[in-house]
Amino acid sequence: MGFASFSRLSSSKRDLMVEGTNMTKCYEGDSLALHTDLYQINMAQTYWRDGIHEKKAVFELYFRKLPFGNGYAIFAGLERIVRYLQSFKFSANDIEYLREELGYEEDFLDYLQNMTFTGTVKSMREGEMVFGNEPILRVEAPLAQAQIIETALLNIVNYQTLIATKASRIKQVIGSQTAMEFGSRRAHEMDAAVWGTRAAYIGGFDGTSNVRAGKLFNIPVTGTHAHSFVQTYKDEYTAFHKYAENHKDCVFLVDTYDTLKSGVPTAIRVAKELGDKINFIGIRLDSGDLAYLSKEARRMLDEAGFPDAQIIASNDLDEYTIMNLKTEGAKIDSWGIGTKLITAYDQAALGAVYKLVSIEGKNGEMEDTIKISSNPEKVTTPGLKKLYRIVNKVNGKSEGDYLAMEYENPAEEDHLKMFHPVHTFISKFVTNFEARDLHALIFKDGELVYELPSIQEIQTFAAENLDLLWEEHRRSLNPEEYPVDLSQECWDNKMRNIEEVRQKVKNMTVLNS
Amino acid sequence: MGFASFSRLSSSKRDLMVEGTNMTKCYEGDSLALHTDLYQINMAQTYWRDGIHEKKAVFELYFRKLPFGNGYAIFAGLERIVRYLQSFKFSANDIEYLREELGYEEDFLDYLQNMTFTGTVKSMREGEMVFGNEPILRVEAPLAQAQIIETALLNIVNYQTLIATKASRIKQVIGSQTAMEFGSRRAHEMDAAVWGTRAAYIGGFDGTSNVRAGKLFNIPVTGTHAHSFVQTYKDEYTAFHKYAENHKDCVFLVDTYDTLKSGVPTAIRVAKELGDKINFIGIRLDSGDLAYLSKEARRMLDEAGFPDAQIIASNDLDEYTIMNLKTEGAKIDSWGIGTKLITAYDQAALGAVYKLVSIEGKNGEMEDTIKISSNPEKVTTPGLKKLYRIVNKVNGKSEGDYLAMEYENPAEEDHLKMFHPVHTFISKFVTNFEARDLHALIFKDGELVYELPSIQEIQTFAAENLDLLWEEHRRSLNPEEYPVDLSQECWDNKMRNIEEVRQKVKNMTVLNS
Repeated sequence: MGFASFSRLSSSKRDLMVEGTNMTKCYEGDSLALHTDLYQINMAQTYWRDGIHEKKAVFELYFRKLPFGNGYAIFAGLERIVRYLQSFKFSANDIEYLREELGYEEDFLDYLQNMTFTGTVKSMREGEMVFGNEPILRVEAPLAQAQIIETALLNIVNYQTLIATKASRIKQVIGSQTAMEFGSRRAHEMDAAVWGTRAAYIGGFDGTSNVRAGKLFNIPVTGTHAHSFVQTYKDEYTAFHKYAENHKDCVFLVDTYDTLKSGVPTAIRVAKELGDKINFIGIRLDSGDLAYLSKEARRMLDEAGFPDAQIIASNDLDEYTIMNLKTEGAKIDSWGIGTKLITAYDQAALGAVYKLVSIEGKNGEMEDTIKISSNPEKVTTPGLKKLYRIVNKVNGKSEGDYLAMEYENPAEEDHLKMFHPVHTFISKFVTNFEARDLHALIFKDGELVYELPSIQEIQTFAAENLDLLWEEHRRSLNPEEYPVDLSQECWDNKMRNIEEVRQKVKNMTVLNS
Repeated sequence: MGFASFSRLSSSKRDLMVEGTNMTKCYEGDSLALHTDLYQINMAQTYWRDGIHEKKAVFELYFRKLPFGNGYAIFAGLERIVRYLQSFKFSANDIEYLREELGYEEDFLDYLQNMTFTGTVKSMREGEMVFGNEPILRVEAPLAQAQIIETALLNIVNYQTLIATKASRIKQVIGSQTAMEFGSRRAHEMDAAVWGTRAAYIGGFDGTSNVRAGKLFNIPVTGTHAHSFVQTYKDEYTAFHKYAENHKDCVFLVDTYDTLKSGVPTAIRVAKELGDKINFIGIRLDSGDLAYLSKEARRMLDEAGFPDAQIIASNDLDEYTIMNLKTEGAKIDSWGIGTKLITAYDQAALGAVYKLVSIEGKNGEMEDTIKISSNPEKVTTPGLKKLYRIVNKVNGKSEGDYLAMEYENPAEEDHLKMFHPVHTFISKFVTNFEARDLHALIFKDGELVYELPSIQEIQTFAAENLDLLWEEHRRSLNPEEYPVDLSQECWDNKMRNIEEVRQKVKNMTVLNS
């Protein structure tokens, strides 16, 4: 009751839905422009009626807290954002829905129908290391546009960055061994399965089981057979033989009935019988005590003359179980990671937000904006800013990230003062440094001016970035906090804005009383 | 290195990727048929070469353990599955990828290219209550087809059922008050945002903020304005007035600067000034101590003569925080739930599996299959079975679910013996009951024979189903376990199969040694 009264209720009409060739296309005229929260459209409508919809607005996208207690995150999502913004357009069917079901007026709908993205976007490159409270991405666009795209941008960055980061954590424990993404069946619907495995690849994974992701993103794909394959042929001996008849490279799954009594001995027997006719890569364990089973299997394979046969393990693995297995001396060569990676199981959401930091004033000049909160960490940092990574030229390591006002140029300073943005007495002076601008220009006035790198280039870029960090920031448990500091100007500007709001609230209190 | 040797590595070719009108369509010829694990295709290939790809196979889809420690789950995902199976078809581009990048042979590719789904599917209806170790869905199809669709089916059911269940838990705590889904920005990519909110609606939610989901699934949508709206107009007084000029129904967001000093008093002032010109629905709180703020805001609204103005709250809510807020006497009328719902934050994955239970033998008869495991709960229940809900005719409550062999008919029994499938000494006799077949026929030999209900019908069905449960099974903390029992025949058959495998392993051990 309360609900209906303040929401725009859609009726029971279902004829908007039509049959199609597959699910993501089965609703004729589905477009991602409508993939937004209703309040974005309500705000856009008000701005449009008020004639301020074309005012230039600057929003920053960032998260406050690193996920998994990790010391860094890996940004992913830019390619999806580029495609989304390039193709941003309400379909005729979207407009019809907004008119018929939600009751928006014709003139506003005309405006929406003609809307394309005409803004400027600066963003970190995919694979970039990112930390809390620094802008991953900055949108400068006409107010109404900048608002409507918020939901999709956050939806994309939050998930893909979360998974790239989780993958990087896991890959650091796996080291030079092979890490494969196996999680499609547990992912949060289909987009997550494919974009998640792409993010995992960026974070350092070597491949995926998902064939569609392999095709869409040029990621190596891998896979052999399942338990049902053994069940189909009733026994492992027949099943392994049948598989080997059709595949030169053989990995046999050995835990359908009994790993050590039946699976491993049968794999060895078939490998011996077929000799050079196959390339016996090894075996896969998918249940039971992986530490014990892998050690026993290793011994059996070695004794049978297959010291190079690999042992591949899967079954609810993550960085913690893998670290434990390694500590226990498990003899595992390759790792298949599913659920815990693709769902970021131990922390299933990243909390990135999208905040207005500056808006065009009456005379065309840009004015700061700020949001205050009773939670101090939620107060935004206003104004037009730039983000630098301060890299020490002597040791090649990063001293921290540095958020400065746009008109500043830290590269010109001999002694750069870096101080903690909360505990401001903690500070250091940095000399002989390089100040790297962390943002690339992606869209200029709606035009794509950035060339998307290949997925392999992104993976390499991510790995190289990690080398900028001291080990202390990279360890998976209790890493040392990496500095993300404000310049003195930026800090002063923030304090000034807070003080202004304080005055405003005081005046409001008088007016309201 | 180990990886490349047993995987089918795709080259660096990127020309498969083409520009398109939006992301989900930007890869020409993308189809969901390829949304599968590579091993499914490798197995299909082997079956095809071996001439057994058309053998009838029966797979059951089920999970073992209820999520969130809940006493029941709510099934969602059937509509998506129906669309997926109806449109199942490899695109020309898929085939090209399989040929050029993965090296499959032409004759097998011809077979794939012509593949459509020709099987029979029985399934629970969406909104059905479901418990551990009972088949949600049963696929009878040619072996190769049944195998290839596994990944997508699990991907769909695992996520949608998880969210419908989480939503139902939250809605039970919210009761008759309004529950709104606000989580798109934190969902795991775009499919999760829209299918997740659909699942939440099935679980009892009243609406969503996601406009695209509203359009696609006919779900009520809701939303007013964000903090950035207030920032744009600099002060709340102007912002609320501007909003009111363009919207009859007004909910003002009051925590941009200071909730009690500025936000609430300004909302009251604007509501008084505009009087009957607007429909002042109420205010929204999105940060701070929601218990304290809501009580203070309630007092202020009442004193100002707005006793009917609602207080809407959001900010990382879930069933636990809501229960606590209610216990503390928070004055909240409507709830916006985001992150914790759409990501199923406290348990981000459901572990449904898809297991082969029966396969056509040499002479066309169906033969049982079983998978054994060192984890006893992972042993499958073989054979062709049917699932019944045993409803007591006297009190209308359900006595438990009952899995019987297909040839059995529990409805014919006067005294039905129900015993615990693990602790078999726990048993009861049930009389005067109705045995409801929980599966509907969805596809018959590839043809859709089921009419998909409307989303409103599904929501009602789910709510009615919950009434079959005693309160003890419905409480959110430590619910009493609901019985899912095997018939005596079904239990005996399982034991027989286990014994046969034991013999097989013994024989294998002799042969391998």
